[in-house]
Amino acid sequence: MKNVYGIKGNIIYTKIFGKYEVVSNGIIVIENERVKGVYNDLPLKYKNIDIKDYGDKLIIPGFIDLHLHAPQFPNMGLGLDKELMPWLNKYTFPEEAKYENLQYAEDVYKKLIKKIWSVGTTRCCIFNTIHKESTKLLLDLFNKSGLGAYIGKVNMDRESPDILIEDTNKSISETIELIKEYKDKYKLVKPIITPRFVPTCSFELLKSLGEIAGKYDIPVQSHLCENSGEIELVKKLHPECRNYTEVYDKANLLKENKTIMAHCVLVNEEEIDLLRDKKVFIAHCPTSNLNLSSGIAPIRRLIERKVNVGLASDISGGHTLSIPEVITSSAQVSNLKWLNSNKVEEKLTTAELFYLATKGGGKFFGKVGSFEEDYEFDALVIDDSDLLIENNLSIEERLQKFLYIGNSNNIILRYVSGNLINEPIL
Amino acid sequence: MKNVYGIKGNIIYTKIFGKYEVVSNGIIVIENERVKGVYNDLPLKYKNIDIKDYGDKLIIPGFIDLHLHAPQFPNMGLGLDKELMPWLNKYTFPEEAKYENLQYAEDVYKKLIKKIWSVGTTRCCIFNTIHKESTKLLLDLFNKSGLGAYIGKVNMDRESPDILIEDTNKSISETIELIKEYKDKYKLVKPIITPRFVPTCSFELLKSLGEIAGKYDIPVQSHLCENSGEIELVKKLHPECRNYTEVYDKANLLKENKTIMAHCVLVNEEEIDLLRDKKVFIAHCPTSNLNLSSGIAPIRRLIERKVNVGLASDISGGHTLSIPEVITSSAQVSNLKWLNSNKVEEKLTTAELFYLATKGGGKFFGKVGSFEEDYEFDALVIDDSDLLIENNLSIEERLQKFLYIGNSNNIILRYVSGNLINEPIL
Repeated sequence: MKNVYGIKGNIIYTKIFGKYEVVSNGIIVIENERVKGVYNDLPLKYKNIDIKDYGDKLIIPGFIDLHLHAPQFPNMGLGLDKELMPWLNKYTFPEEAKYENLQYAEDVYKKLIKKIWSVGTTRCCIFNTIHKESTKLLLDLFNKSGLGAYIGKVNMDRESPDILIEDTNKSISETIELIKEYKDKYKLVKPIITPRFVPTCSFELLKSLGEIAGKYDIPVQSHLCENSGEIELVKKLHPECRNYTEVYDKANLLKENKTIMAHCVLVNEEEIDLLRDKKVFIAHCPTSNLNLSSGIAPIRRLIERKVNVGLASDISGGHTLSIPEVITSSAQVSNLKWLNSNKVEEKLTTAELFYLATKGGGKFFGKVGSFEEDYEFDALVIDDSDLLIENNLSIEERLQKFLYIGNSNNIILRYVSGNLINEPIL
Repeated sequence: MKNVYGIKGNIIYTKIFGKYEVVSNGIIVIENERVKGVYNDLPLKYKNIDIKDYGDKLIIPGFIDLHLHAPQFPNMGLGLDKELMPWLNKYTFPEEAKYENLQYAEDVYKKLIKKIWSVGTTRCCIFNTIHKESTKLLLDLFNKSGLGAYIGKVNMDRESPDILIEDTNKSISETIELIKEYKDKYKLVKPIITPRFVPTCSFELLKSLGEIAGKYDIPVQSHLCENSGEIELVKKLHPECRNYTEVYDKANLLKENKTIMAHCVLVNEEEIDLLRDKKVFIAHCPTSNLNLSSGIAPIRRLIERKVNVGLASDISGGHTLSIPEVITSSAQVSNLKWLNSNKVEEKLTTAELFYLATKGGGKFFGKVGSFEEDYEFDALVIDDSDLLIENNLSIEERLQKFLYIGNSNNIILRYVSGNLINEPIL
């Protein structure tokens, strides 16, 4: 059969939140870039397909990063003893202003994409800057890499530094131009509407972006309730709204299964209801929330309330692009939540966090992040031999060890939508 | 002049808590393994000494790890969605029971020492198991490596699993044997009295260990106030004591500048006074305290109350041996403390944490952890070129970037007590 092949190894993934599916020495059959099934014994019809045997190695879904800022890559690890606003003004905004320079942008983007590839992230959602041309460049480079991504030109027309403020009409027209040019251009790399956040976007701009998102059926990403100062500012700017989330809703920016809101550290019960009803995805960014003293997002509560949640690096508020490191950080802050709730609010287990890091965020991309039938085949092959001193660990324990103490060097192969992706030559 | 040499580069270290000393393109002069001075222009008397020029690289003091468990190395990253007690019973105790087997122990210790070397830790304080012979082996292997360490045979004679419980007299006699044999055997590697913690040591044993520590002038290390369940247990076991810390004090185990207590997450004001008066060192283990849901130690308060504090990996409650990763974690939990104190308790800055990671913990070893005159020369040479996209960062910013996003590969050379230490061949 053509377009059909198999991959053999110790397979571990999730279908349901918190429950591992484990097939040791199993075979994943892929047809036309999608999973047909996971087997211990191949059905007769597949007896003659090519099988790549990875022996004792682990095979897991690729990691999904629901929120990161490409132009902040050069600032990773800088200024992280500051709070959100001082950090934005000293480090972030001056850096973002540089991306009018395409040569500089190209140099940074190439290094960023290689790093994203190396850490085993197969799909991500990216904020660029306000600059249209550098955003096009980033879309083109990502497509060349073979990785999947939604990439947005940032919109900001108020409460912004002079070096980064847009004229409202220009912001709108450039956004439309980008969307028309890129919405159907690439298979795995797409544009996304990206108002920076309410404070930096006039309601006129937000409303227009909502209309564009509707007219061209484009997804949306922004920030929500990261920090108390930010929420106060939104209250001042929008006394007509009952809360921060409602501002986005009034602008038709909360689209069913098509909107990502980063952070949600301080969302109230009313906002949680709205996020659930609108099927919004929350990008949980614990490393960033810790580094910038924002707090701990109520992830267990959001999940119990049926809100979609995925994990995200949020560089460079976050200091690492590694989703396994974000999993570790998510576990740690959920341990503190448990402690602060007098041991009532249950901790997130490694299996639950692994789900969020793969299928949880993958849902935003369609059938991505699992090895269930008809899922796009995004996978990592993990050689964890240097992490093992004992040889009697279960597959689940080996995965946990890799997530906590492994690194890029343990990831020996990366598949995206059925294709083996080698280190990007850009 | 013989035994005199110089090292040139971008030098950054601390004398005072929270204040960097920076000498770009400076020269550190070392004589008889100790720092004579740090200069921009060499004094005449040094005009003819050999100078190793590391160009634009960073030169910083070696990192100090005040608390880790050697036999837990194979368990790093395992079971970290459990709490202290279940984690000890499922993973830690069964692993520690294996160290009666010297072959197994040797294999683990060699891998551990190479890893400690690779992450830039030049001195550490180590818990082994109850096993005398494997403890001797670890002392010998560490001496061979060239790194500095205090290494203790663990004592436990109650409330312990059958596989790891000692007869009180045997525990005492073996401890004395070890100390006599090793107290003056090596220059940089020494024994240390190591009661596991109050729950697993009868008061008779604690008292004897206090006497031994006094008689042979040996330092002491243990655990204190890590977790609420542990504290409740100590209350039950020692109703005669006003608090957990007092139990150690009554056994004469709090020795001026010679005792390390790990964790101290839940120490009360009275205990803080006692720890300060006895000049005890606190080993701050934030990664472990997060992983095992113990909580956040009151580091700012301890420092304001003049208690000595250093940083520690506490593997395998901690999942990393990297002190820079512990610095990042310490910053993150201190950000949460600030937030939880309604922004009253000041955050720990990167400069403050760098001090704790070098001079703060180094004090326990004598004049270690700084480049001030007469300090033993422990240093790392850092090539951070792959971390820099921009070239206009200050030395302080380059250090911060290395601490947050660098790794072992950025550390190109390691000096311990004046000697260049190559990767240990053990």
